[in-house]
Amino acid sequence: MAFYLIGIDGGGTSCRAAVAALDGRVLGRGKAGAANILTDPETALQNITDAARRAFEDVGLDPTGIAASRAIVGVAGHNVGDAVHYVKRRLPFAAADIESDGLIALQGALGNGNGAVAILGTGTIYIARRGDEVSYIGGWGFTIGDHGSGARIGHALLQESLLAYDGIHEGSALTDSVLAEFNNDPRDIVDFARLAKPGEFGRYAPRVFEYADRGDPVALVLLKAAAATVDEALDVVVSRGSRKLCLLGGLAPLYRRWLADRHQPCFVEAEADALTGAVALAAARFGSHSGVPA
Amino acid sequence: MAFYLIGIDGGGTSCRAAVAALDGRVLGRGKAGAANILTDPETALQNITDAARRAFEDVGLDPTGIAASRAIVGVAGHNVGDAVHYVKRRLPFAAADIESDGLIALQGALGNGNGAVAILGTGTIYIARRGDEVSYIGGWGFTIGDHGSGARIGHALLQESLLAYDGIHEGSALTDSVLAEFNNDPRDIVDFARLAKPGEFGRYAPRVFEYADRGDPVALVLLKAAAATVDEALDVVVSRGSRKLCLLGGLAPLYRRWLADRHQPCFVEAEADALTGAVALAAARFGSHSGVPA
Repeated sequence: MAFYLIGIDGGGTSCRAAVAALDGRVLGRGKAGAANILTDPETALQNITDAARRAFEDVGLDPTGIAASRAIVGVAGHNVGDAVHYVKRRLPFAAADIESDGLIALQGALGNGNGAVAILGTGTIYIARRGDEVSYIGGWGFTIGDHGSGARIGHALLQESLLAYDGIHEGSALTDSVLAEFNNDPRDIVDFARLAKPGEFGRYAPRVFEYADRGDPVALVLLKAAAATVDEALDVVVSRGSRKLCLLGGLAPLYRRWLADRHQPCFVEAEADALTGAVALAAARFGSHSGVPA
Repeated sequence: MAFYLIGIDGGGTSCRAAVAALDGRVLGRGKAGAANILTDPETALQNITDAARRAFEDVGLDPTGIAASRAIVGVAGHNVGDAVHYVKRRLPFAAADIESDGLIALQGALGNGNGAVAILGTGTIYIARRGDEVSYIGGWGFTIGDHGSGARIGHALLQESLLAYDGIHEGSALTDSVLAEFNNDPRDIVDFARLAKPGEFGRYAPRVFEYADRGDPVALVLLKAAAATVDEALDVVVSRGSRKLCLLGGLAPLYRRWLADRHQPCFVEAEADALTGAVALAAARFGSHSGVPA
């Protein structure tokens, strides 16, 4: 029986799907809501299914064909065992593997080549591939890791604004702008920070880049400290053999020029996006060259 | 009608009370459970009352005299308006003011003199007094402040242990000890950190001091960074006129030798504890020299 391949790129705000032929050629695409298997597996399952159905409809295929298809599902939280097993058993496909959102991003960015991706967004994680070996560095989350991430940069800015308020550090136009936003009342900053999720801290990160471009002294200190954490993680990736480095995530275009000269020659543009990476992994694992009988 | 003065030192783990004559001379003491007016005002009220009753019983006074007494209640969270009003209206005394735990500590440490206290415990805060003016620096809590606190030092140690695990920073015997405690599994550290309260992070702080004393390189980096945050806060206090600095809190004896040479000549020992400070404030406000009619 003929079947199709499906790639899924599931994220915290939306889930994208692509349906492809057995050689990995993409035929159609679809999109649905968030797919966070850790915090809301039922909604994730529904949105994965909806995105796949829309991809089938996009190209005029009968969506009942989903049940015969084989899929790679890339999601955050893939390494939390219970959630993966729960979701994997309930996926609507004939066969599927759940992989990390980072791995499908790496596959999309570098194709089958060796190298590493640095995902610089609300969080940070570094993923390197050398032959069949994939290694992860960082990515431990906002509370205790994710150095250099948007969430950490935003958090550092709020913290620095309080230090400026207290006269412990020099303030600047940047910290003034934050204090003004919170009515020049440090308690309002504390109240915000106590309940803020990483994404809410992260909303302050672009402002740090913007002020650093104008030479704001506090922005420069914060950004250089953040860039140093990215540089030292890239040093580890390079020391383990990665010669190609691809910066991904919302902060990647902002970060590049702030990173160390020693890394600049290694930076490459992504060949394709994470959804394409998921399809490529599906083709390699279940497609016409995979050795899996059709 | 004759009445007594009461001083209360209410904390997150216990509440202490002293009953005193109108000239501030302490007659008896009592102790009860936690008094956190912010998180649990009813229990705080009960424990404040119990501690006062035990102080009366300690010296053979009839506890019904509590209702005629006048008190200074020193507690954390004193600056959160709603909780203060709620608790103040329900206190069992004829008259009472609620003050910060920091202010009663300062009064105990410095008596009526000018100067500042640095409270270095699970959190950090600096309180300076010059004449009638009292100013607070720092103390914004673990999430966005409390630099140099036990909670921040412990948090930094766990973070550093993950960086060592990833090969991003050099590890040491100190980070090895943390990783071993978490089964060399970074996910166990992440799970702990996600739910840990400041006090739970703070339990790791003494270990950093201990390893620094032995010359552990990671401990030295973490401790010097923490001490620098204390030194720069003390700089502000000194720049505003404080010539006497008193270090208080659980980390004070550990910290002293790590602080900058420029501050060492200013350090003084506390004259008395916070409970004594609460009694002294009660005597000044309600006692025989206060101008309040007995």
